[in-house]
Amino acid sequence: MTTHAPTDVARDRIAAAFSPELIGRLAHQLADRLETHFQTVTQSAGNVLNWNAPPANVAHARAHLSQGQVDPNPLCSDFTDQVEQRFASLVQTILDRGNNLHDPRYIGHQVPASSPIAALFDAIGSATNQVMAIYEMGPWASAVERSVVEAVGEEIGLPKGEFAGLITHGGSLANLTGLLTARNVCLAQSWESGVARPGRPPVIVVHADAHYGITRSAGILGLGTQQVIRAPLDDRRRMDPRQLDQLLTELRNTGTPIVAVAACACATPIGAFDPLPDIVDVCRKHDVWLHVDAAHGGAAAFSDRYRHLVAGLADADSIVCDAHKMMFVPALCAFVFYRNPEHRFEAFRQDAPYLFDPSTPGETSDFDSGLMTIECTKRAAAYGLWGLWSLFGRQLFADMVDTTFDLGSRFAEMLHKEPDFDCLHEPQCNIVVFRYIPDELRDADPTKIGEFNRQIRRRLIESGEFYIVQTNINGIGALRVTIINPLTTEAHLIDLLDALRNTGASILTEHQRATLAD
Amino acid sequence: MTTHAPTDVARDRIAAAFSPELIGRLAHQLADRLETHFQTVTQSAGNVLNWNAPPANVAHARAHLSQGQVDPNPLCSDFTDQVEQRFASLVQTILDRGNNLHDPRYIGHQVPASSPIAALFDAIGSATNQVMAIYEMGPWASAVERSVVEAVGEEIGLPKGEFAGLITHGGSLANLTGLLTARNVCLAQSWESGVARPGRPPVIVVHADAHYGITRSAGILGLGTQQVIRAPLDDRRRMDPRQLDQLLTELRNTGTPIVAVAACACATPIGAFDPLPDIVDVCRKHDVWLHVDAAHGGAAAFSDRYRHLVAGLADADSIVCDAHKMMFVPALCAFVFYRNPEHRFEAFRQDAPYLFDPSTPGETSDFDSGLMTIECTKRAAAYGLWGLWSLFGRQLFADMVDTTFDLGSRFAEMLHKEPDFDCLHEPQCNIVVFRYIPDELRDADPTKIGEFNRQIRRRLIESGEFYIVQTNINGIGALRVTIINPLTTEAHLIDLLDALRNTGASILTEHQRATLAD
Repeated sequence: MTTHAPTDVARDRIAAAFSPELIGRLAHQLADRLETHFQTVTQSAGNVLNWNAPPANVAHARAHLSQGQVDPNPLCSDFTDQVEQRFASLVQTILDRGNNLHDPRYIGHQVPASSPIAALFDAIGSATNQVMAIYEMGPWASAVERSVVEAVGEEIGLPKGEFAGLITHGGSLANLTGLLTARNVCLAQSWESGVARPGRPPVIVVHADAHYGITRSAGILGLGTQQVIRAPLDDRRRMDPRQLDQLLTELRNTGTPIVAVAACACATPIGAFDPLPDIVDVCRKHDVWLHVDAAHGGAAAFSDRYRHLVAGLADADSIVCDAHKMMFVPALCAFVFYRNPEHRFEAFRQDAPYLFDPSTPGETSDFDSGLMTIECTKRAAAYGLWGLWSLFGRQLFADMVDTTFDLGSRFAEMLHKEPDFDCLHEPQCNIVVFRYIPDELRDADPTKIGEFNRQIRRRLIESGEFYIVQTNINGIGALRVTIINPLTTEAHLIDLLDALRNTGASILTEHQRATLAD
Repeated sequence: MTTHAPTDVARDRIAAAFSPELIGRLAHQLADRLETHFQTVTQSAGNVLNWNAPPANVAHARAHLSQGQVDPNPLCSDFTDQVEQRFASLVQTILDRGNNLHDPRYIGHQVPASSPIAALFDAIGSATNQVMAIYEMGPWASAVERSVVEAVGEEIGLPKGEFAGLITHGGSLANLTGLLTARNVCLAQSWESGVARPGRPPVIVVHADAHYGITRSAGILGLGTQQVIRAPLDDRRRMDPRQLDQLLTELRNTGTPIVAVAACACATPIGAFDPLPDIVDVCRKHDVWLHVDAAHGGAAAFSDRYRHLVAGLADADSIVCDAHKMMFVPALCAFVFYRNPEHRFEAFRQDAPYLFDPSTPGETSDFDSGLMTIECTKRAAAYGLWGLWSLFGRQLFADMVDTTFDLGSRFAEMLHKEPDFDCLHEPQCNIVVFRYIPDELRDADPTKIGEFNRQIRRRLIESGEFYIVQTNINGIGALRVTIINPLTTEAHLIDLLDALRNTGASILTEHQRATLAD
């Protein structure tokens, strides 16, 4: 067997990549650059979105990779300067080319301007690479996760000490985990023997506007996306308990296995919160597993003003709540809760002798998070939330919910007053959907109006002036905002309306010119 | 509709959580503390693992949450000091209670002492909350991901411009994604209609020592874990191509659908690399999808000395490679590659109008990573890898593979020379499995020897002296190390053997005393 001594150059390069002194120097530099960056961005001094077309951006990113070759001689005094200089340029490239969620004119997807202080806590987990799967590998990471699982679960209304929960990498995975548990409970032996069985194929009943992650789960879990039944909605796009009752009755009458009902708090398109207490009653009547995707709205439980929106949430069998949405921590930190703690080991049932040491004392292995999550190696995803909470207290989360939800209602009021805007619903939270319809398009074909709104949005976001998103309501394009930067104020929303008008006017003028030129 | 103006206190609290000046101050303080921490840890000046029993740790973490209530008055000069003081104490708590992977005596799981410089780049993504799903939401994050997908894929040997790939949150998810694609390709319409179908139930053929994530995938995907067939291994625990050929012939003869063969590069227990070129031939002969879990070993492609271990990898249909293992970046950054780029959209097939804007120009939507990944919101998981690579060049990754793989062989040589240690294999990489068998236990029952080794390990890790892991070989406990801190040297391994002897001696003495006292 031949072994090789590492060359001096190799050893020096490794030493540099792990040098405490260098890390300190670079971290201080990063601190300065982040401070400057957030000063610029929170004051709206640049673009919200720094738009570059994909191929150009990829080529730029790729070019940097091939330029990476710092002279690896840490004994040379130039070396550290050289690394520092290149580090500075790379950091600035990342900052200059991003989407500036911390600009108050970012009013886009359900991804928040997260507290950068939370990110500093997150960075500790990253720098020390604290991970889980088994408790002994990341004892403090595991303990921190358990502490916020307990605390958030109790805020949601789950009874102290009588529920279970976990953190996973995002809402889609969280929904998948909850529905996998439901599948395994509903279809006995499906984990071991597969989902195929005699009789009618099992179904999942979902809110008709449920996030695509829910429908995808049916595809992933082997049930089939066609086995997803969309429960009818009321006129505010909330799941209708009476019609749900009818639907479940019909399904039970035909002997169709019902894996779960998946309700929303709130649903993505317009932020509609399902009437959970009634849905709980219907599900209990039919003995069906209730899963609630409260990825966005779960945090309303922190607010005295908005808690009523999630009344009944704690009576669901599985609950998803994303801290990286309305708790304003960086992605990803998604909770799954089980009302019945016995269900926590239903999703996965496996042994891995090198991981799950049979000699581990029983009480310790109950803290091995890998038994409950898809992830084996899992980041210390709760450090940001735990740090922010430990610093500012739970009231900060209530404040941020109140501020952004309030502004959602305020924006709807503003839209109602403007004759050239149509607000398409009465917002229950910080998601608002509307259309800009200037006089000349008031009588136009709805499809054309939808297309016009999409064009405005694309031009607006690429200009860097605002970042908002779009959706389809009854098949017609519409504008959609999520007020998920707590620094956004009414003044920014007034400016948004002006920007939409101006962009719309440019498009109409160009269109008229084009028509004249024909 | 009633709206409320945020109170002054609420506004101040939010302002503090987003204050650029405060972030700067805290980030500088973090920089100092990280430098000191890494100085202490890399010099082995404290414990490797800071062991505390779970309930005590959870109670401690929980107590901090209820203490979080900084006086939210940024106008008061005390305020910032108060926040800074509490931040310092929280940071130090996290650092003091972790598992110190950067201590060279950490020789544990397949989770590296990652480069803290990579973590600084990662922290930018976290601070600015750059995410993906769609390109426009995180254009630079998407571009950086694409650039490293291209670069790592090419290193592995995939032909430039002719493959596809993605990054996801961990090896388990990456394996699930690859096998989901295989399932959808093998079982037509299973995404839409479910996996149930007439005829014999479909199977997945896996390396008998495959990671539990592979077997779990069969459970998640609705096939059933009992439909996992373990392919026979040779005497070095590598998949045996001749026996695989026989197995596939038998399955084909009975008309059993074969979703995939899942091979390993390397398998977890002893780090065995499958003979991929032969396995590729067998799979092609039978027209079966080949999935290779190269989570640990894929990075061997960077090394001139060890590239031979992954010869044939690029001929697999789906490939998993974790940058958060042998590329030494913080968790999580796992690659999935598809040899045939057409397969990239096979795993998930869904539309979400508010996300996937039909008016997006075609070439842009091809950069919407959410179409290829389970995650909708996805972290900018490639920043760490991209930054490290752009700073030091690809050679750093070769250096780290060489250094740690070399030391694996060297450790085996050391063990072979010691009469009281049994090395259980000839290591192919940095994973080494062995037992400590002092003279007095040489003729003992193997189960007793296995149990003795487990006791030694538990005592050793809880003492903080070393962190190593354990596994079962043929049902008997054994010690297992992964040399995955590039600062670990031969001297540390010599110390490890002494520590094992001393710990073993204590246990034996205690046992003798207990026996005498009986």
